[in-house]
Amino acid sequence: MRDAIRVVVLGTGQMGSGIARLILAKEGLALVGVCARRSARAGKDAGEVLGLERPLGLPVRASLDEAIEHGRPDIAIQATCSRVADAAGEIGALVARGVNVISIAEGMAFPACSSPEEAARLHESAIAGGATVLGTGVNPGFVLDLLVIALSGACADIEAITARRVNDLAPYGPSVLATQGVGLTPGQFARGLADGSVVGHFGFEESVRMIARAVGWDIDRVDQTREPIVSSVRRETDFVTVEPGQVAGCFHTATALRRGEPVITLIHPQQIHPHLEDVDTGDTIEIRGTPSIRLAGSPEIPGGQAPVALAVNMIPRVLDAAPGLKTMADLPVPAAILGDARRLLRGGA
Amino acid sequence: MRDAIRVVVLGTGQMGSGIARLILAKEGLALVGVCARRSARAGKDAGEVLGLERPLGLPVRASLDEAIEHGRPDIAIQATCSRVADAAGEIGALVARGVNVISIAEGMAFPACSSPEEAARLHESAIAGGATVLGTGVNPGFVLDLLVIALSGACADIEAITARRVNDLAPYGPSVLATQGVGLTPGQFARGLADGSVVGHFGFEESVRMIARAVGWDIDRVDQTREPIVSSVRRETDFVTVEPGQVAGCFHTATALRRGEPVITLIHPQQIHPHLEDVDTGDTIEIRGTPSIRLAGSPEIPGGQAPVALAVNMIPRVLDAAPGLKTMADLPVPAAILGDARRLLRGGA
Repeated sequence: MRDAIRVVVLGTGQMGSGIARLILAKEGLALVGVCARRSARAGKDAGEVLGLERPLGLPVRASLDEAIEHGRPDIAIQATCSRVADAAGEIGALVARGVNVISIAEGMAFPACSSPEEAARLHESAIAGGATVLGTGVNPGFVLDLLVIALSGACADIEAITARRVNDLAPYGPSVLATQGVGLTPGQFARGLADGSVVGHFGFEESVRMIARAVGWDIDRVDQTREPIVSSVRRETDFVTVEPGQVAGCFHTATALRRGEPVITLIHPQQIHPHLEDVDTGDTIEIRGTPSIRLAGSPEIPGGQAPVALAVNMIPRVLDAAPGLKTMADLPVPAAILGDARRLLRGGA
Repeated sequence: MRDAIRVVVLGTGQMGSGIARLILAKEGLALVGVCARRSARAGKDAGEVLGLERPLGLPVRASLDEAIEHGRPDIAIQATCSRVADAAGEIGALVARGVNVISIAEGMAFPACSSPEEAARLHESAIAGGATVLGTGVNPGFVLDLLVIALSGACADIEAITARRVNDLAPYGPSVLATQGVGLTPGQFARGLADGSVVGHFGFEESVRMIARAVGWDIDRVDQTREPIVSSVRRETDFVTVEPGQVAGCFHTATALRRGEPVITLIHPQQIHPHLEDVDTGDTIEIRGTPSIRLAGSPEIPGGQAPVALAVNMIPRVLDAAPGLKTMADLPVPAAILGDARRLLRGGA
């Protein structure tokens, strides 16, 4: 069998650390580098930074070049940012050296959406470097786009698609809570929307455009709404306390119009402790068509664990793919890696 | 843009006719042949055989060679049989002439399962002919395997998978009802199981092996159970009447064991008019793991419409694929073709 698949992880936050720990747990994958640019963590042993009980003998690198040089990775997983503009530099440097990339930056789920020119450049660079680049994540990248597209495949015709994801923000840290306006007054929330400090969900436009491209719909425009979820009760996490009358989260929707008609509606209310007001979390996909299809699950596929798993589980798919910039809809579906990851390579192990 | 994608349909039964009608309805697809070997339908106009109000000027062919010669198809969709042994001859003839194939034969969903040597031969022939062969269908091919695999991709680890499909056989004809034992006494059902005339669902072994291969589990064995669903009430269709005490269908399960433990359990009770005894139809996928995931929908994704849609919707995926024998887990997910099918080709339209 070939040597273990060599993986470098970029980012040592919650996601990056989770990804690195999962790589360590998987047979056939080798963690050959951890990169934390411009961070006080650089130079420390990766085991310490990842919260392991043992040192790994692997220093956290501040420099991507050093991480590539010492790690000689087959693939890098990027968990450092959200926007294509922030992700593209690292990705370009990796593919130029022939390293495949999986990014969980939300914008990278469908980079042609926010950054068509940058996406075209990355695609060309990836092909030139003989490398594959994939953006993934639970949302965008899975629940409100890939699963929707897959279910559409069982339909002869479709009138409209509605998908809803109701989740709990309680596990998240202060930066996520701030972008959702948690803890603000309704007036502050409105001002936050206006000044861009409250943004709601990042990824609607990407999901809508992925679906539309997959089915061949030309979309006129995507309308988004963001409303404060004003709490009737006191809600509290380690990082924020919401009093009655304050904002517990953001009710964010996106509607794609085609020939003036709404054809794709994505609904994603995010808040802390929704159960305190008897709101069940969950994922629901409804397709009105021939046939109509509805699939739902409660609670939601969790936003903490699932992106970590998806990023790691897509490694064999990316290594098997042709060079270039890919979306989740361009590659075979992910599968949990439960045996030796090398055996899941179709190209032969 | 390239010329329309030229499609030949093999089979003029319910599935073949549905596939041909859907091809006629889709922009960018051209129905260039209908084949009904050894059938009284040969020579008639395809429009008449498909139940259209207008002639198509396309005679139904009895000979596959003639259909290829006159139609010059890019791809053929096979809806003539269930078993790999019955499907392989036509597929071999098609790929030898460079024609891609989508088959809805249940065995073709994962032909290496029942017929590893035939699968290897087809794979080699397809590569030699520069053609791609795909088996698809709603089950096997989608609900109890592809969707299960896709959801597993959001999991870091999995202890066990259970998927259940409860459906209504009332729309089906006499041959399907007979293989499920509908209308028999429990004694006749038992004898039918023994002599092979009652078989239950065709495709469990294929689905289990697809899932196991995708996640890298080595399976010890697959145990199947088939029990009669004895009706307490009178149930009636156009083709069969079931009196109380008679068999309304077959409760069929498959359990895959790994290291002695059940890891994949597929449950598929099929019967006519389940609602008469307050049984809801539906599809449910449950994964016990990290995280646990449960997704369910009622009613079930319909067994009549969905395979027709899947067969047609996979055309762009198959044309984009590398030559060889593929499963649904080897290709990008299907998507409804709602615009011009040619625009969905990634290879460039």
